[in-house]
Amino acid sequence: MAPSQQFSVQVEVLLRDGIADPQGATIERALPALGLDGVTAVRAGKSFRFDIAASDDADALAQATVVADRLLANPVIEESVVTVRPAGSPA
Amino acid sequence: MAPSQQFSVQVEVLLRDGIADPQGATIERALPALGLDGVTAVRAGKSFRFDIAASDDADALAQATVVADRLLANPVIEESVVTVRPAGSPA
Repeated sequence: MAPSQQFSVQVEVLLRDGIADPQGATIERALPALGLDGVTAVRAGKSFRFDIAASDDADALAQATVVADRLLANPVIEESVVTVRPAGSPA
Repeated sequence: MAPSQQFSVQVEVLLRDGIADPQGATIERALPALGLDGVTAVRAGKSFRFDIAASDDADALAQATVVADRLLANPVIEESVVTVRPAGSPA
């Protein structure tokens, strides 16, 4: 294994459907005061970005998924979306 | 103005470069204990998703940017990235 390439990773963590999201609900209630009535279905979550050294795309995705599932998200109530791209490429 | 279309919006809020990110630093320090040594430059932020009713793409982006700058992010220390796509299209 020669982890020679750098990859940029984004992990988005959102509450699963059906889990109460009080932060999202509070944001939604605040919006009419800003004059915005067309906003619905607000969900609040977390976003993490990091760089990872890996031998290829699949290795980077596997390592990033371990980080997401074991450290960043609580899989019981949260779902995570992992996006990997070569470092330096556009988001 | 006929706000007839629905758009899906993602807003990612991250601390600006140079602002201390203790949550990201703590995550980075925890990773070697999971056997992951190749992870660097961890940044922790927030992610919000919502639906918005707007007349077209530009209107949806303008409204979503107001939400991001006035409610979701603190522009002094945080930068926000707003992504708008027609509802139902793949992420």
